Amino acid sequence: MHQPVITLMTDFGLEDAFVGVMKGVITSICREARVIDLTHAISAQNVRQAAFHLDRSISYFPDGTIFVCVVDPGVGTTRRAIGVQAGPYRFIAPDNGLLTTIFERWPEARCHELTNANYQLAKPSATFHGRDLFSPATAHIAAGVPLDAFGPTIDIADCTRIELWQNKPLDDGKGWTGEIIATDHFGNLITSFEAGMILDSGDWKVKAGNSEPMPILRTYGQVEQGQPLAYIGSSGMVEIAIRNGNASAELFVGEGDVVEIRRE
Amino acid sequence: MHQPVITLMTDFGLEDAFVGVMKGVITSICREARVIDLTHAISAQNVRQAAFHLDRSISYFPDGTIFVCVVDPGVGTTRRAIGVQAGPYRFIAPDNGLLTTIFERWPEARCHELTNANYQLAKPSATFHGRDLFSPATAHIAAGVPLDAFGPTIDIADCTRIELWQNKPLDDGKGWTGEIIATDHFGNLITSFEAGMILDSGDWKVKAGNSEPMPILRTYGQVEQGQPLAYIGSSGMVEIAIRNGNASAELFVGEGDVVEIRRE
Amino acid sequence: MHQPVITLMTDFGLEDAFVGVMKGVITSICREARVIDLTHAISAQNVRQAAFHLDRSISYFPDGTIFVCVVDPGVGTTRRAIGVQAGPYRFIAPDNGLLTTIFERWPEARCHELTNANYQLAKPSATFHGRDLFSPATAHIAAGVPLDAFGPTIDIADCTRIELWQNKPLDDGKGWTGEIIATDHFGNLITSFEAGMILDSGDWKVKAGNSEPMPILRTYGQVEQGQPLAYIGSSGMVEIAIRNGNASAELFVGEGDVVEIRRE
Repeated sequence: MHQPVITLMTDFGLEDAFVGVMKGVITSICREARVIDLTHAISAQNVRQAAFHLDRSISYFPDGTIFVCVVDPGVGTTRRAIGVQAGPYRFIAPDNGLLTTIFERWPEARCHELTNANYQLAKPSATFHGRDLFSPATAHIAAGVPLDAFGPTIDIADCTRIELWQNKPLDDGKGWTGEIIATDHFGNLITSFEAGMILDSGDWKVKAGNSEPMPILRTYGQVEQGQPLAYIGSSGMVEIAIRNGNASAELFVGEGDVVEIRRE
Repeated sequence: MHQPVITLMTDFGLEDAFVGVMKGVITSICREARVIDLTHAISAQNVRQAAFHLDRSISYFPDGTIFVCVVDPGVGTTRRAIGVQAGPYRFIAPDNGLLTTIFERWPEARCHELTNANYQLAKPSATFHGRDLFSPATAHIAAGVPLDAFGPTIDIADCTRIELWQNKPLDDGKGWTGEIIATDHFGNLITSFEAGMILDSGDWKVKAGNSEPMPILRTYGQVEQGQPLAYIGSSGMVEIAIRNGNASAELFVGEGDVVEIRRE
Repeated sequence: MHQPVITLMTDFGLEDAFVGVMKGVITSICREARVIDLTHAISAQNVRQAAFHLDRSISYFPDGTIFVCVVDPGVGTTRRAIGVQAGPYRFIAPDNGLLTTIFERWPEARCHELTNANYQLAKPSATFHGRDLFSPATAHIAAGVPLDAFGPTIDIADCTRIELWQNKPLDDGKGWTGEIIATDHFGNLITSFEAGMILDSGDWKVKAGNSEPMPILRTYGQVEQGQPLAYIGSSGMVEIAIRNGNASAELFVGEGDVVEIRRE
């Protein structure tokens, strides 16, 4: 049998030993698990950002992968912890909207609340469920414990869902108005426009901040050094970049800012 | 037999290839070792911080884990490199106080100096013992070489010990005066007060910086957004946080600052 | 047979899920591969920096290691993607000079262009070849596919080579003039002087920024706290540090700045 694959995504950062300790707990329970960090740099309590990154990452992992997502502003309150079987994957997260797109993609997903104390650490803290609840649950699932052993079934219609971005893109006849949903490590700007919105890509121009309207091209190398461009990014959204530059810094544009796409 | 588990903690950061190269050395000698990063963001040369994070992490790892800690301001001088067997664990570190709490928790611990050149890289550098001395020693231990093959026994009474924080909390009759010992990724402030100091938690208030006295609660969600609170943190110390905020930034309080806990 | 070892080096950072997704792709194709991060903090598009770190890391990894290096300003253009067998190692990278020192060290290296679409993800993006081309190629190689199945042979004389630093050190009779090629996590300054240039180390002094001429010593502990020194660093180059300090910040010296070494 294959080693089980577990991915971790949190807003814990790597400065403290939080993530290392989660791996210690997992390894203590399921020694053969293979743990892959998706990212631990989600901004603090930013459930929306985590939901987006999770959604765009899933298909690159093998069947059977267990995705653990701990961005958890409600830790220690009555918010539920859930385990979800959806297609060939399992997901472990607080019930705060993090799994919104999972429920949309797999309407037949099965969900259980994680209440069984046998699969938690003894005397769990009220502030670090990543260590005390989510990690042991994950490791027991990886070790073969079935999801229904963890607690009562929840109808996924009763699970929390959120809007993945503040404002859905608006079709105003001449094009779309949307927003910047994320800035990546390079300062590239990810917009809320799905690639499918602009199937005939040649005619469209993108405008953000005080930039001139930008053509939609295939890759960075098609403009001169320091010039801006738009393109279909690797996550399937329209993105804005400056070749060998930082679009966010140079265009003074960031998360939540308005972006327009126009048929010229 | 289980794969050996090795944890790494350093002040090397992740910008350079230092940590990657340590893993290369370990893997070259003991291919089946599983290496888990505890953290590599200990502040430069901060032995005290490393000792604290190590101490609070140990119990979450499986028996047999080898903890490697390289925060090593004395690298290349006469400071000793040591390997310690303590309870079900092994520890590899410079003899600079990093293992202080290990010696307190396991007074029967056995310690050897790591002097045997057979278990070091050829021509070790004077500035990167993490690569040239600690990594190969660790990997050979993981591969089954017994600790006494590495060098002479040292009485742990002769090992360097340090105070884990600058000032031990002071009982002044009405409560305790202590200090902030660390700030975590979220800006939460970890104090030098152990949970055991305030067993009857209802009556106590915590004061730091120019904050109003804060009640000791169970979790963040018990105060309004943006409000401060104190609580028993996941490391067993009293902590101070601002719900969905950054206590260190907003209260202007950081490592070494005074904090008081008072029975009101 | 041993688990295959793969190292990853990119300029992707760890804020996004880029690196996690690469590992997902690799694991999907070659479950038993062991993936080690060399570093993901190469400055954006800094091929020279990546080439230096790669070169200094290789010898610490076991025979058979596959080194994957994705610092790729030309992604999506006509720049080639290559796979190289050199000595006991394999290297996967864009053909942009990243492997310059590999070609110098192993003149008999064999190189293939990575064009076979069977070993790429379906519908590869034009901006994230780390995920869509380099990761699957790497995983197939790890799984045993021979390099010549990936595409046509390239004579390594036709591969792109770069100067590893801007200015080769200049021998001016009284010593050498060179430059700072990198600053590490501690603020230590790595110069372009190879250790071999100053075989009789006692007589030399190093000068950078407005520092006094610094002696070449063995390790940090040989000067007082806060004092500067030069030494042969762990990468085989002359380095400059301040004991328990940050030489880059305190001497106002950084990458590209002039440094001199003089026989006094």
